[in-house]
Amino acid sequence: MRILIVNVNTTASMTDTIRAQAAAYASPGVEIVGLTPSFGPESVEGNFESYLAAVAVMDRVVRYDEPYDAVIQAGYGEHGREGLQELLDVPVVDITEAAAQVAMLIGRTYSVVTTLERSVAQIEDRLRLAGLAGRCASIRASGLSVLELDGNPGRAVDAIVAEARKAVVDDRAEVICLGCGGMAGLDRKITAATGVPVVDGVAASVALAEGLVRLGLTTSKVRTYATPRSKTVTGWPIAGGFPHAAASTGRRDEPRSR
Amino acid sequence: MRILIVNVNTTASMTDTIRAQAAAYASPGVEIVGLTPSFGPESVEGNFESYLAAVAVMDRVVRYDEPYDAVIQAGYGEHGREGLQELLDVPVVDITEAAAQVAMLIGRTYSVVTTLERSVAQIEDRLRLAGLAGRCASIRASGLSVLELDGNPGRAVDAIVAEARKAVVDDRAEVICLGCGGMAGLDRKITAATGVPVVDGVAASVALAEGLVRLGLTTSKVRTYATPRSKTVTGWPIAGGFPHAAASTGRRDEPRSR
Amino acid sequence: MRILIVNVNTTASMTDTIRAQAAAYASPGVEIVGLTPSFGPESVEGNFESYLAAVAVMDRVVRYDEPYDAVIQAGYGEHGREGLQELLDVPVVDITEAAAQVAMLIGRTYSVVTTLERSVAQIEDRLRLAGLAGRCASIRASGLSVLELDGNPGRAVDAIVAEARKAVVDDRAEVICLGCGGMAGLDRKITAATGVPVVDGVAASVALAEGLVRLGLTTSKVRTYATPRSKTVTGWPIAGGFPHAAASTGRRDEPRSR
Amino acid sequence: MRILIVNVNTTASMTDTIRAQAAAYASPGVEIVGLTPSFGPESVEGNFESYLAAVAVMDRVVRYDEPYDAVIQAGYGEHGREGLQELLDVPVVDITEAAAQVAMLIGRTYSVVTTLERSVAQIEDRLRLAGLAGRCASIRASGLSVLELDGNPGRAVDAIVAEARKAVVDDRAEVICLGCGGMAGLDRKITAATGVPVVDGVAASVALAEGLVRLGLTTSKVRTYATPRSKTVTGWPIAGGFPHAAASTGRRDEPRSR
Amino acid sequence: MRILIVNVNTTASMTDTIRAQAAAYASPGVEIVGLTPSFGPESVEGNFESYLAAVAVMDRVVRYDEPYDAVIQAGYGEHGREGLQELLDVPVVDITEAAAQVAMLIGRTYSVVTTLERSVAQIEDRLRLAGLAGRCASIRASGLSVLELDGNPGRAVDAIVAEARKAVVDDRAEVICLGCGGMAGLDRKITAATGVPVVDGVAASVALAEGLVRLGLTTSKVRTYATPRSKTVTGWPIAGGFPHAAASTGRRDEPRSR
Amino acid sequence: MRILIVNVNTTASMTDTIRAQAAAYASPGVEIVGLTPSFGPESVEGNFESYLAAVAVMDRVVRYDEPYDAVIQAGYGEHGREGLQELLDVPVVDITEAAAQVAMLIGRTYSVVTTLERSVAQIEDRLRLAGLAGRCASIRASGLSVLELDGNPGRAVDAIVAEARKAVVDDRAEVICLGCGGMAGLDRKITAATGVPVVDGVAASVALAEGLVRLGLTTSKVRTYATPRSKTVTGWPIAGGFPHAAASTGRRDEPRSR
Repeated sequence: MRILIVNVNTTASMTDTIRAQAAAYASPGVEIVGLTPSFGPESVEGNFESYLAAVAVMDRVVRYDEPYDAVIQAGYGEHGREGLQELLDVPVVDITEAAAQVAMLIGRTYSVVTTLERSVAQIEDRLRLAGLAGRCASIRASGLSVLELDGNPGRAVDAIVAEARKAVVDDRAEVICLGCGGMAGLDRKITAATGVPVVDGVAASVALAEGLVRLGLTTSKVRTYATPRSKTVTGWPIAGGFPHAAASTGRRDEPRSR
Repeated sequence: MRILIVNVNTTASMTDTIRAQAAAYASPGVEIVGLTPSFGPESVEGNFESYLAAVAVMDRVVRYDEPYDAVIQAGYGEHGREGLQELLDVPVVDITEAAAQVAMLIGRTYSVVTTLERSVAQIEDRLRLAGLAGRCASIRASGLSVLELDGNPGRAVDAIVAEARKAVVDDRAEVICLGCGGMAGLDRKITAATGVPVVDGVAASVALAEGLVRLGLTTSKVRTYATPRSKTVTGWPIAGGFPHAAASTGRRDEPRSR
Repeated sequence: MRILIVNVNTTASMTDTIRAQAAAYASPGVEIVGLTPSFGPESVEGNFESYLAAVAVMDRVVRYDEPYDAVIQAGYGEHGREGLQELLDVPVVDITEAAAQVAMLIGRTYSVVTTLERSVAQIEDRLRLAGLAGRCASIRASGLSVLELDGNPGRAVDAIVAEARKAVVDDRAEVICLGCGGMAGLDRKITAATGVPVVDGVAASVALAEGLVRLGLTTSKVRTYATPRSKTVTGWPIAGGFPHAAASTGRRDEPRSR
Repeated sequence: MRILIVNVNTTASMTDTIRAQAAAYASPGVEIVGLTPSFGPESVEGNFESYLAAVAVMDRVVRYDEPYDAVIQAGYGEHGREGLQELLDVPVVDITEAAAQVAMLIGRTYSVVTTLERSVAQIEDRLRLAGLAGRCASIRASGLSVLELDGNPGRAVDAIVAEARKAVVDDRAEVICLGCGGMAGLDRKITAATGVPVVDGVAASVALAEGLVRLGLTTSKVRTYATPRSKTVTGWPIAGGFPHAAASTGRRDEPRSR
Repeated sequence: MRILIVNVNTTASMTDTIRAQAAAYASPGVEIVGLTPSFGPESVEGNFESYLAAVAVMDRVVRYDEPYDAVIQAGYGEHGREGLQELLDVPVVDITEAAAQVAMLIGRTYSVVTTLERSVAQIEDRLRLAGLAGRCASIRASGLSVLELDGNPGRAVDAIVAEARKAVVDDRAEVICLGCGGMAGLDRKITAATGVPVVDGVAASVALAEGLVRLGLTTSKVRTYATPRSKTVTGWPIAGGFPHAAASTGRRDEPRSR
Repeated sequence: MRILIVNVNTTASMTDTIRAQAAAYASPGVEIVGLTPSFGPESVEGNFESYLAAVAVMDRVVRYDEPYDAVIQAGYGEHGREGLQELLDVPVVDITEAAAQVAMLIGRTYSVVTTLERSVAQIEDRLRLAGLAGRCASIRASGLSVLELDGNPGRAVDAIVAEARKAVVDDRAEVICLGCGGMAGLDRKITAATGVPVVDGVAASVALAEGLVRLGLTTSKVRTYATPRSKTVTGWPIAGGFPHAAASTGRRDEPRSR
């Protein structure tokens, strides 16, 4: 089984971190391939960057030309999962939703601790659209940017732990979801400080993606996520070096996975 | 890894079917143990029977004296999952919720096709409490009882397929969940008739339970699912042969899993 | 008119208190009968105990062999009301719901002040399922257990009043519901401290149960609360001394009330 | 105990019918007084008429100069209950809400069958504001006006029964609420046709109003329903013959009930 | 284009203020006519006063005998808009809803800062019924009455700014709506203190009413806001000097606007 | 005043139609500029295309180098509005939301009639996120694609009218929103067939955008729609001819409007 995990930003070192985190939780025999978009922002914080990342992620995945069994979109609260579901036949798992689902299995409520204030609304909207917001106790921002977190995770712990504690005590959260791919590895410290389980979205996504593949299930194509219709698309894929003929059709007629 | 799957009724042949279905989807090295309650109804249809089954399931699980890693409650729409979560430290997965979660990963909406009209409200309530009802398009009853289904699954197909088709066409469901353990094996016929993926709750539960174990996550004990307090409990466990001393304490101080 | 009021725990002195509170609010000519389950926990705090109590309450009521007109389940936030509604033809009133309904008649919002943190979620779930959560401002825990409250109600007042005041000031509650049968009699002190009316669920249930009987209304049997189907039930009723023949049928064919 | 029941329209014969229905369900020793507004429409169908009726009902009640213990507003889905709650210290019960509450005690869902299409939205809004819409399966209109219903109830039965049956079969209602004061007496026919209990709002209100009085509970004055502030009000009470001095103060400082 | 803006209270100086605020935002060629009810309270705070004002506003508008193109009801959180919509063919805009709509166009969430605590519930209910509450972060009361605000707006600023700041910081509001007609002119100070845009409902209503007229759209008459049926209405219009013949018919058959 | 209206697809003739429709409803002195994205699909139907269009629309707008006062995104149910709000200081109006807001001002409920089944979920999600779904009665698909509609609007009328009629009769809609820019001009036929007002989103957006400009209001920058942070963005703007230096910063520091 091969699972693609796609970073949403163009910082290759973050792709490495995410890939390693995913691989650490993969079952024996499961290969994790990390992909980095070829355009877009160095970190994704806000809607403009998130929309751009959505297209960059789709672009990167459809240009991957080996067979694979599932795709994980590794941006917390980002746009784009529905587009991937239309383009692909294999299962697509978003880390925001995977973390929430896993949290709901082990506690009555969960809170998300993320980076910046501006990401809170996006995460809330994604959870609401996914039908997973009902048991969300709160979404809290630590005030640290993605790159600050990536550059110095040690320094970030205090701010994240402080918000996690407020989530447990004030918001009555029973589980904490780490609201950024760069937070992987903080789970023990947060559990120690709060006494509740901590869910990392990347790890959770690996578990769910593996499960879907083993169940033999793929995205329903009956209505919302039906394959895009055949039509003229100008300027897609948009990264350098893409095949021009394909650019105008979206490569819809080609096989996309094993 | 050992996963207990507990039937909610006292019909041992149904436990066998459920266990086999679970085993068929388990990863290599995962042992599936099927348990049958020692008291309760031969099939569970309605709240009285479901409450009785909830206690019978808890009774059966706490009397299992080998180590295990996770428990699956294999009754669709039945009471009791929260009680197991309090009593145990290992993850507990309910097939109703597992099916819904998996369905939400592969389609925007799902419908449940169950047995009798009287079960519809129970399933709806369980999904609502679990925070998973937002993407539920409908819950439909085929009109067949659990035992009719178990006795002659072939005969049941038409009724179930008919409701599944209405769910897809009229209720705009994009995935169908099989709302009864006894429906395992009908997935291909329903997919053929409706063109949408079909999720069996037992299989889905195995995937999720395995995932939780691999992630090293267990139920949050911080508030709602905290271990029961130490107090005098009369008449529990209630089945024959249990140790009397334990009966008055709920065996709370003993290890419950490996 | 005879109304059964069933304690959910096995502490007989609490049954007496509850029965006396109910009798104090009953109209002339209404007889209140207090029942204590013959098995289960000495106090009910959490889901495991609540599920066990649900069965114990059903067991106790169906073994009561005099005619009666209505049943009150006197546990705040506990499971089981739907099961009683299936088994019986007479009206069943739950004190959680009765308190909320009465509160909604005399104020725009209400809060519940209960015992332990672990009960908050259960109460919230019961109100939500009953369709009565929309006007619930908050559910607050005093931190006192049921038995502490029962043993020394005087000592409990301060903690309860403190939470009630927060409910009124911070959560904008306009009515307070006493979230435990053992809190009866605290209403005046809480009203004095907060300036809002206080509703005791036991008293409220008596008013509603009497009202239903006078209106000649009984539980709808059309779908959700239909009488259990005829089938083999092993080990029910489960308390000592029950008639064995009945155990396997749930006594479904016998009259249950006058 | 004396309970005022106020018709919302100016048709005195409908007041008589409503009063008789209320009296038929009142406990011994409870006096029912029927009041008719001195201005407003002959029947209330729509918001303009309902707002006018709201003022007319308040006008009529505050001019009643005998002591009383509770007030019932006998218009289904009409405005004004909150105003009465501000003006009075005794409990105020609205038949729309009373019927819904009683229905929710005896079934999982209820539907309302009312007169004209234009009343459906008003009823829905009143139930939603009261926090009682969650278990409402549907609100259906028979197409008959209030006066047609009042003039020839026999003729109305078929249309009402037809909608009630659809509510039970198609909308899954388990209880039917009669959505107009003039429908009293149709309950048996509807039960015969549908097999579900039928709740008349007038009767239900009597039961709830009696209950509130026996519980010694009155409207919370802490915030939303606080007594109106002392200020200059021109043209109120507005009906002929009212004392002019009082007109400018709203009679706020005078006792309003025993 | 002529737009009527109706004050909800009988204080003529407030009508002047409201009219001036509206005129300041009207497009060239749009005439703003201010109307004051001929009966009702000097300020509207609470349901009793609001219901009376609803009728007084309807009374005033239907007695206006020049042609007009739209009507603005200038009371924040008050009853009555639906009645006007039934009586009139031209568009009716309520300042509560207009402010919320405009706020939702320029921010993800909004809070309302109003006068007294007792008005909070009314505003919440109006927003909920209008389907505009989903993005409402909070409704906060400054504690100042309408007349205090009108008499000394300078003094009111601090209290209002303090609540607005809490709304932005604690409730995460991104826009502030001024919850009282008398607050016009405070927008700059609140923006300076909070950094978020401030919406005045009167100004917002002018923009929306103009827009509706230019779009050629009027209230749907198909069901909820259908013209009142022809029937006997006693005592309406209710202000002194009204034509008696019209009083009994509600003037339904006469043209109401150009 | 200058308002940009941006088509979401690359079909220039549709831009012309949309621009003409907008201009027909603009006030005197308001200039409407139509923009066509320089890349993306020829019509937008589904999430992949919609995400690509979101980026293409942002790209087109930020490359427009004349001053302007507001922007209208003219795709029904499409992604991207939040990104524009971050990038720009002037108001941004989405036709989906504008149509819903205007519809809610003139009727209690509205339905959307759109093109293909696959667009229904997207529209529902956009309305839900915008907080405008509460009064949405239904979203119905005519089954015609955008290009079929554009190529032969006459042929489309019957299908659209048929769905609109069902929306009014079956779903109880009181207003119809045209769920595609290409449907402009069908309003009279639909009103004639259904008796309810019809709202075109392009026209509605012009009214709202003008209103916002006259009110002097712009998007709140306090949290969700704050200007993107300064960081390295690779490959943006992505269309040919953009200044390379700006490409790496998103041109965040340059003025974007007059």
